[in-house]
Amino acid sequence: MGERPPTSRDLARLAGVSQATVSRVLTNNPRVSPDTRARVLQVLAETNYTPNALARAMKTGRTDTIGVFMTRVTSPFHAALLDEIGRRLSEAGLHMILWNIEHDPEESVAEVVQQRLVDGFILTSATYDSRLHAAAVASGTPTVLLHRGIDGLDCDQVVGDNWQGAYDAGRYLVEAGHRDIGLVTLAHTGNTSRDRDLGFRAALDDAGVKIKTSNVVTTGVGHADGHAAAQKLLSRAKPPTAIYTVTDLLAFGLLDGARARGVQVPDDVWLIGFDNTDLASWEAFDLTTVDQPVHAIVEAGLTLLRQRIADPARPTTTQLLPCPLVIRGSTANTPAKPTGKKSRTRTD
Amino acid sequence: MGERPPTSRDLARLAGVSQATVSRVLTNNPRVSPDTRARVLQVLAETNYTPNALARAMKTGRTDTIGVFMTRVTSPFHAALLDEIGRRLSEAGLHMILWNIEHDPEESVAEVVQQRLVDGFILTSATYDSRLHAAAVASGTPTVLLHRGIDGLDCDQVVGDNWQGAYDAGRYLVEAGHRDIGLVTLAHTGNTSRDRDLGFRAALDDAGVKIKTSNVVTTGVGHADGHAAAQKLLSRAKPPTAIYTVTDLLAFGLLDGARARGVQVPDDVWLIGFDNTDLASWEAFDLTTVDQPVHAIVEAGLTLLRQRIADPARPTTTQLLPCPLVIRGSTANTPAKPTGKKSRTRTD
Repeated sequence: MGERPPTSRDLARLAGVSQATVSRVLTNNPRVSPDTRARVLQVLAETNYTPNALARAMKTGRTDTIGVFMTRVTSPFHAALLDEIGRRLSEAGLHMILWNIEHDPEESVAEVVQQRLVDGFILTSATYDSRLHAAAVASGTPTVLLHRGIDGLDCDQVVGDNWQGAYDAGRYLVEAGHRDIGLVTLAHTGNTSRDRDLGFRAALDDAGVKIKTSNVVTTGVGHADGHAAAQKLLSRAKPPTAIYTVTDLLAFGLLDGARARGVQVPDDVWLIGFDNTDLASWEAFDLTTVDQPVHAIVEAGLTLLRQRIADPARPTTTQLLPCPLVIRGSTANTPAKPTGKKSRTRTD
Repeated sequence: MGERPPTSRDLARLAGVSQATVSRVLTNNPRVSPDTRARVLQVLAETNYTPNALARAMKTGRTDTIGVFMTRVTSPFHAALLDEIGRRLSEAGLHMILWNIEHDPEESVAEVVQQRLVDGFILTSATYDSRLHAAAVASGTPTVLLHRGIDGLDCDQVVGDNWQGAYDAGRYLVEAGHRDIGLVTLAHTGNTSRDRDLGFRAALDDAGVKIKTSNVVTTGVGHADGHAAAQKLLSRAKPPTAIYTVTDLLAFGLLDGARARGVQVPDDVWLIGFDNTDLASWEAFDLTTVDQPVHAIVEAGLTLLRQRIADPARPTTTQLLPCPLVIRGSTANTPAKPTGKKSRTRTD
């Protein structure tokens, strides 16, 4: 079809050397004799050779590369999300450039856009005050928000139904008879943290259960923050009988904090997290939690992104996927595992 | 210096539009009027405009991008390694293309090399039978092996001293009086798994302690594999009094398997892992383990890689960094935390 740029195979033939030798010259490998190098460079100059990826990018405007912005992957949920994104992109024959929003200043997105390094963006850590998503969307580069959405932002978004998942967790505790309930939450920096907080409060409110101000801990995202929350909530004379945390990682920290104080879960206090990371199913935690459908979120998000790359003018959409409650041993009434453990808090 | 390609600023000036509008045209954003689009495209054609990154790559032969090959980041150690690599590359102003060796066929490295997508490779998952490192090195692309080395491979390598770390773990158990010792290990697919196995055996051998064949479990890399190893080793009438696993993740699985059987660590059995991941310090595990110096490995590796990019002819080097034993509660004689717990196995 029309003219095509010469390939390294063409170059090798013209220079009378192997493709490997051409590759060595292109990569400045010293293991090429000066004569051979000169011959290859001569052919390069004569043919105006452009390496394939660059040639294709210039010809098609496509780089076959997707830029992914993510928070720290030392968080088990984000590691699982990255793993799934990488798997899906690889299946689609796409490369992934990965940026950590905690390491890379947001301004870099402007440079990335201007340099046309990527065909599209996947943003997994959108927050209200981040200019990252705004810059990505304003650039016109196809962009999808995964996992964390922003209300009213005119771009494709695929998120779990955090509000409903949190509501179900709250209702489950109330229906089990809990009235003195703790909430370990994050500042409402985006829809995700907001909805996991407000959905839970709504369930308690609907049941006429008031949540004491002293039972709410607003904290950071790490294991150590959950651990410190345990100290605050469990050191009282009358601690709450159940605690909900807005992420699994906070729940792991809280469970470890309880362990350090000799407080038993679920005998002394019930615990519910949010994310259903792999670790939640380990005996060390055996955590009742709300499932984030990572697989479905990534699948739907990549479909939307590829549709947008193919047709930039199509209307944007927001998809909300269900987040079911997964009941395990950190709450006592697990029908599958009757343990006979007493739960002192089944009635108010 | 000399001619320079036009920038989007030049284009904007020539077309009489804003830089943002030029960017929108370049990214096929529909929110540009047909007239404006036509004017910008006309200027593009007249100036033979090439977007910056491509222009620079063609001019300098550099992409400012490093290709990283890694295994699944759902393993806590690899997540920490990736996090550190990303932080360091970002500080150096370099982009990272990330490939998962479990998702991406090894053949893709040849394509990546030919397309000159990256200035260098970081390989964190080298194994003897992988052609990935051989292909990377043969291509002449600057390459460094981090964390997993391969004996005799002519490329820069930075690894922990796995053999010595494993030896120290073995000696520690023997000096504490253990004689009936379990080993949960991996097939020797690379230096790392080999040295973590052989170093441990050497320590026992030097002390005249024989390791029973029935006490050795060779398994896979996941939490479930450690869990299954617990079943094998702890279901006997007389289980080993101490177990060493060649990764933390296997130790977490083993600890959870012990928990599931009601076996107490360290009262009934001591446990030592390898990696010193963050999780090892959590109360849930409180794991004695051998420290992998992730920070130092990545720092040394990136220094070597940048030196090689600057001077491809410099001799290759292998750096071996110390892996100290970190003693926690999964072995009983922690001087910092005298618990009075009996250890039934201090003497043979």
